[in-house]
Amino acid sequence: MTAQAATSLGVELGVLAADVDDSAAGATRGIVVGSTESREELEAFAAGRDVVTFDHELVPREHLLALEDAGHVLRPGADALRHGQDKGHQRRRLDELGLPVPAHRLAHGVEDVEAVAAEHGWPVVLKATRGGYDGRGVWVISDAGAGRAVLERAGAEGVELLAEEHVDLVRELAVLVARRPGGEAVTYPAIETVQRAGVLRELVVPARTGVGLAAEARELALQIAEEIDAVGILAVELFETGAGLLVNELALRPHNSGHFSIEGAVCSQFENHVRAVLDLPLGETAPTAPVAVTVNILGAGAEPARGLGDALAVPGAHVHLYGKAHRPGRKLGHVTVLGREVEEARGRAHRAAAALSGATIGAAA
Amino acid sequence: MTAQAATSLGVELGVLAADVDDSAAGATRGIVVGSTESREELEAFAAGRDVVTFDHELVPREHLLALEDAGHVLRPGADALRHGQDKGHQRRRLDELGLPVPAHRLAHGVEDVEAVAAEHGWPVVLKATRGGYDGRGVWVISDAGAGRAVLERAGAEGVELLAEEHVDLVRELAVLVARRPGGEAVTYPAIETVQRAGVLRELVVPARTGVGLAAEARELALQIAEEIDAVGILAVELFETGAGLLVNELALRPHNSGHFSIEGAVCSQFENHVRAVLDLPLGETAPTAPVAVTVNILGAGAEPARGLGDALAVPGAHVHLYGKAHRPGRKLGHVTVLGREVEEARGRAHRAAAALSGATIGAAA
Repeated sequence: MTAQAATSLGVELGVLAADVDDSAAGATRGIVVGSTESREELEAFAAGRDVVTFDHELVPREHLLALEDAGHVLRPGADALRHGQDKGHQRRRLDELGLPVPAHRLAHGVEDVEAVAAEHGWPVVLKATRGGYDGRGVWVISDAGAGRAVLERAGAEGVELLAEEHVDLVRELAVLVARRPGGEAVTYPAIETVQRAGVLRELVVPARTGVGLAAEARELALQIAEEIDAVGILAVELFETGAGLLVNELALRPHNSGHFSIEGAVCSQFENHVRAVLDLPLGETAPTAPVAVTVNILGAGAEPARGLGDALAVPGAHVHLYGKAHRPGRKLGHVTVLGREVEEARGRAHRAAAALSGATIGAAA
Repeated sequence: MTAQAATSLGVELGVLAADVDDSAAGATRGIVVGSTESREELEAFAAGRDVVTFDHELVPREHLLALEDAGHVLRPGADALRHGQDKGHQRRRLDELGLPVPAHRLAHGVEDVEAVAAEHGWPVVLKATRGGYDGRGVWVISDAGAGRAVLERAGAEGVELLAEEHVDLVRELAVLVARRPGGEAVTYPAIETVQRAGVLRELVVPARTGVGLAAEARELALQIAEEIDAVGILAVELFETGAGLLVNELALRPHNSGHFSIEGAVCSQFENHVRAVLDLPLGETAPTAPVAVTVNILGAGAEPARGLGDALAVPGAHVHLYGKAHRPGRKLGHVTVLGREVEEARGRAHRAAAALSGATIGAAA
């Protein structure tokens, strides 16, 4: 989707991808096959390009620093990216800034898990500080024994863990910021994210929260972007609790929660990411409709193409398939619907997504 | 732009292009280099594909018929496409159907030009029946001598000409129809097209014409689509005169006049072309804003990329560059702006397009 935005702006985009079947490969011919684990392949990819940006957090920090030392322009830079790569670093930084985060400590041993439980009760959440996303690397622990088991496994794999209070949520929110190198920044309307089993299932925009809280979320996201010197898209994932907002996660890249923006905002997160990292004027983030709903397509049964006709028969269904091979539970695409009324739009979006997931609804087993 | 729509729907699109620098090449990896003049290359390209469609009229009719004879599925089919390939055939067909067209006759000699002038006055318009577009292949003739000169040149090149009355225009309109093989069809709102020197410069949607006339234009376009069995996008170009509508031209493919629809309609002409030729349910053609204005970017001075910052600073400017090398007068892309008020939207769209054309405005010579 970033490739499509770049193409429209006449920007030549190269993609360093693990293989030619990467979903970006369908949308651009600028694919370079290589590994972000290899400093040589990163160097070769960066050579001669004006700017290097990222769509995941998995490039090793030492490689990022080496690229910057060699004079390559990374946007965001290595120090900003670290807030999306290392949850421990991110929590420490937000603590220093006095920003609200869940109560947490590094879990060196089960005594750290028990300390969190003593103060906040069970369950306790254990999170890998690196490499986790979409529910991977997160464990909800209901007693010390379970905590010990996770700690042992993580220790054996050299994974550092955070122990955090289990937050009692009203809902989850996300705010996207687009920010240029000089500091100019814009935010999108607050997004309500609906997760199931740690996987993002649905977006409702604007979030069904109070106007004051939505404004506060946007201010908080802008402040974080400024403090960590984010460039491009910064996604700030938030917990809304009865006592206010907590920052849950930062991602310094176009984000799942911004998929609504292709149709639901004047300028999409993908285009604004391209604009921002090239230090071009940012596009308008205003909504194009009273409500936008995005539902992710998770593989369930058949190939999504078999449901395409049924999905496209749903009025106003904007279908985005990522060209990935079908596998149960895999995120294969998303559907966005714009409307005037939330439940009506949700109904249409879920109908189209169900058709594409290959689910058979109401059929006898 | 069709390639981007296909990618989003998870549809694998191959493109038979004259060279790898074709602008579609930036948006898809499915490029096959070859010539539509070669029956062998067409056959090889069509082999194993479910459907073959078109984005220009230049595939020789005998090759189209051969592909159909060989069992390939062409959408639109060869007989429908002929109405976009051969103006003489198209005029005859519209005459037979009793549909309004400019007064015309085949120009075998200067006496045919004089006959049109005798009935309708000078100037007379001479048009090549094949191969002309964007003002190429059209001559406005003010006397018999000029007509003789054009006829001689055309005769030497084996080009057949039509002589037509010069129509006194109120404005030019276009209507896009998307139609499935079974006959299901939808139209987009009437589009006002502003030409200069025979080249499309600007679109205003909805057209600034009467509501009744706009509805009549849409009915007329639907009727033509049905009669000629168009599949995919049919663009019907119309003259609005003091006495009503005349059909000027048919194009059986996504059309310049539909560029507004990427942002200005719920479902773009490109996506509806893909849907229609695959016999999938058609998308909504309703407008996304009270007014959409599209201005083409014609090369004037510098490379468009040099004006990108200025263009993107225009609020709500949607920039589409086609990745073509710069050349004065060449169509390099377009800008679409949505708004509530026509002149305000026109102002923004022209400002952004001027920046991208490389024009220096108000500078001392």
